[in-house]
Amino acid sequence: MSYPNKIFLEENEMPTQWYNITADLPEPMPPALHPGTHEPATAEDFAPLFPKALIEQEMTTQRYVDIPGEVMDVYKLWRPTPLFRARRLEKLLDTPAKIFYKYEGVSPAGSHKPNTAVPQVYYNAMEGIKKLTTETGAGQWGSSLAFACAQFGLECEIWQVAASYRSKPYRKTMMEIWGGKVHPSPSQVTEYGRSLLALDNDHPGSLGIAISEAVSEAVADENTRYALGSVLNHVLMHQTIIGEEALLQMAKIGETPDVLVGCTGGGSNFGGLAFPFMREKFKGKMNPVIRCVEPTACPTLTKGEYRYDYGDTAGMTPMMKMHTLGHNFIPEPIHAGGLRYHGMAPLVSHVYELGLVDAMSIGQKECFAAGIMFAKSEGIVPAPEPTHAIAAAIREALACKETGEERTILTALCGHGHLDLASYEKYLHGEMQDLDLDQKAIDEALRSVPQVDR
Amino acid sequence: MSYPNKIFLEENEMPTQWYNITADLPEPMPPALHPGTHEPATAEDFAPLFPKALIEQEMTTQRYVDIPGEVMDVYKLWRPTPLFRARRLEKLLDTPAKIFYKYEGVSPAGSHKPNTAVPQVYYNAMEGIKKLTTETGAGQWGSSLAFACAQFGLECEIWQVAASYRSKPYRKTMMEIWGGKVHPSPSQVTEYGRSLLALDNDHPGSLGIAISEAVSEAVADENTRYALGSVLNHVLMHQTIIGEEALLQMAKIGETPDVLVGCTGGGSNFGGLAFPFMREKFKGKMNPVIRCVEPTACPTLTKGEYRYDYGDTAGMTPMMKMHTLGHNFIPEPIHAGGLRYHGMAPLVSHVYELGLVDAMSIGQKECFAAGIMFAKSEGIVPAPEPTHAIAAAIREALACKETGEERTILTALCGHGHLDLASYEKYLHGEMQDLDLDQKAIDEALRSVPQVDR
Repeated sequence: MSYPNKIFLEENEMPTQWYNITADLPEPMPPALHPGTHEPATAEDFAPLFPKALIEQEMTTQRYVDIPGEVMDVYKLWRPTPLFRARRLEKLLDTPAKIFYKYEGVSPAGSHKPNTAVPQVYYNAMEGIKKLTTETGAGQWGSSLAFACAQFGLECEIWQVAASYRSKPYRKTMMEIWGGKVHPSPSQVTEYGRSLLALDNDHPGSLGIAISEAVSEAVADENTRYALGSVLNHVLMHQTIIGEEALLQMAKIGETPDVLVGCTGGGSNFGGLAFPFMREKFKGKMNPVIRCVEPTACPTLTKGEYRYDYGDTAGMTPMMKMHTLGHNFIPEPIHAGGLRYHGMAPLVSHVYELGLVDAMSIGQKECFAAGIMFAKSEGIVPAPEPTHAIAAAIREALACKETGEERTILTALCGHGHLDLASYEKYLHGEMQDLDLDQKAIDEALRSVPQVDR
Repeated sequence: MSYPNKIFLEENEMPTQWYNITADLPEPMPPALHPGTHEPATAEDFAPLFPKALIEQEMTTQRYVDIPGEVMDVYKLWRPTPLFRARRLEKLLDTPAKIFYKYEGVSPAGSHKPNTAVPQVYYNAMEGIKKLTTETGAGQWGSSLAFACAQFGLECEIWQVAASYRSKPYRKTMMEIWGGKVHPSPSQVTEYGRSLLALDNDHPGSLGIAISEAVSEAVADENTRYALGSVLNHVLMHQTIIGEEALLQMAKIGETPDVLVGCTGGGSNFGGLAFPFMREKFKGKMNPVIRCVEPTACPTLTKGEYRYDYGDTAGMTPMMKMHTLGHNFIPEPIHAGGLRYHGMAPLVSHVYELGLVDAMSIGQKECFAAGIMFAKSEGIVPAPEPTHAIAAAIREALACKETGEERTILTALCGHGHLDLASYEKYLHGEMQDLDLDQKAIDEALRSVPQVDR
């Protein structure tokens, strides 16, 4: 069958519902726990943080949730996103494999993050909330939330990990273009931030710390809520628009994946692509191997423990059962900032425990080499995060070259690297190392996680 | 008629020919002249610079030129590009006007420049050329040529204006990702560069100087040629793919433009969008006002003289009849680096002289304000160059609000601003001025242009 490089959907072919995989899990997920009592968290426990509609989505087992019309209107600024057949990369690798990638970099913020930022802001706006707070690492999530807040007229206040705030000033500018207010974290704005700056005025910060700051500001004001860019069930559900579109696109050209690979940081890009395909697998309609790829420097799934832990460093969020390196663990400063989170989405952790997905880790030098190979053949310069998925796809394609198998590989290119060129510069000039895993730091961080047996 | 925000074409609907407007001009263009003899330049005069196929295209009056299959294959990595109806911007402006924009930022390099880089490299490759040299200012053209050279296996050596090389390091990285070799200009590599560095070791450089360096390296080696990213007839012809697609897209939804606005630096983005519409105007099929928008700090059309001048500072290129500020004129360092060229494409100059297009200039602060308004409503952060076109489109839309006219405005968003965020940072923090035009510098630069009466 002959088909083009880019498989598009019309705006009126866009899926109108998100998919909630909890409806189809062979075993239910362990509940989130109140951080103080360690009892299952109730909707009320989440109320200071999130609007009612999102708490409902966090807890529902309804299989499909309708995408509101106002959210569809904003999605249509860039969605449906294209699915590409990477023919020039295949040729470069001289592989019999077919490589497809779903490209989320066409969004205004340049990644998949607006898929959940837009509905999160919408539901807050519907409940009269005036301001959202959040954290951001490299800045993808912060800029996505600022963009979404501009669409619905909400204020947006963002705590950016100080090391990123200083080394990548342009993401801050992007947030400001869309009207966001940005603080380096730790900041003088919150008590927790001030306490850390008192110890170290040049504190580099971490995602966990920035979450603590954003949460503390949200709970202190009744017109303010908090927004999280990954990890939670409702976030992963919003991202399933990626996989639902990809399913339609693959169907259009009569292809089904034999292998699906996605990079995992908090898990939302992976879950977004993989879960709709997992549903089809449950139904027996296809049988792809589904694989998570994480950095060797932050190997949550492959080296972390599956246990209850906090989402933030200060221990203010509910506890979730997930693969974790310990909420105090601060990963080495690899360039894929979006993959530097101590935990993994409870949903992704759960399906991994159930054996529904497998996982592997790859070092950053192999990833950047794969990114450059991709840029030279397909044109697009990928963000450091999806270079992990590309590196895994290339490994698979080269294995096919050995065996002669004509496998169909599907991956998500979750963002472009236009704001990550400083990282490529380091790679090209031989200044990048494969950062070793600090097993001692992980052991120590895990020791300080309260033991909760459930 | 109801239609989506994004009007796409399928890959098999992509135009297969470029349009050469010289076939339809009411008066022929004045010829290019040999820089020494001032006699009409022959194909042989261009031979040390360009491959035969491109020289033929530069001189032909054939109305349509077929796009080679290998070029189509590379175009299809990102083409056809989407045409957007800017409904959210219209709503923000509360205007009865309809605003459409053709978005070229989806290309690998992030602008319209690869449209000509790809065929230029292809024709050189077909004639056995091994290496191309070029100049670049902000870096859009250099990165486009590096990308194109990677597709056909040619070496690419780029002289980047030193001021940009130092202040915008990430474009250099992008060129290197695609395998390009980048020098700051003036450089120690060429005699002309060394002569300038001897006078001023911190020389900021200019486009004209960088052209001189790239040209001198190309003519010195028989396997090396030079590539120019704008100004010349064949470059503008390659860019007509933009307008040809836009015509098909507008026809799909039953719309025709009343006003067409494009930003002009060298003139290739403007010509690429406008010329196919001008052909339809010649045929009596539509009657849009066609308008060039240039920066007040480099007002080639609105304040320059129409006369013969060199394309570069050292006077090594053929002389062309064009609107010029004088080849020695160095425009103020506005942020729209791509609009800082002393001359205007001879073709655009010619149609302006014939009264077929009009022209206006806008200061950079109004342009950045327009860019932010666009980003907040449509999502995409525009490059500084197309903010000029957006500012003009907004002026037009606001005029419609006054009069109640429901005019249809079409513009080209020729690139995204992901590598120009430092400029937005300056604007947002009140550090940007509307740079005044230095009329004395223009007068002086024009005095040093040899008088050629033809």
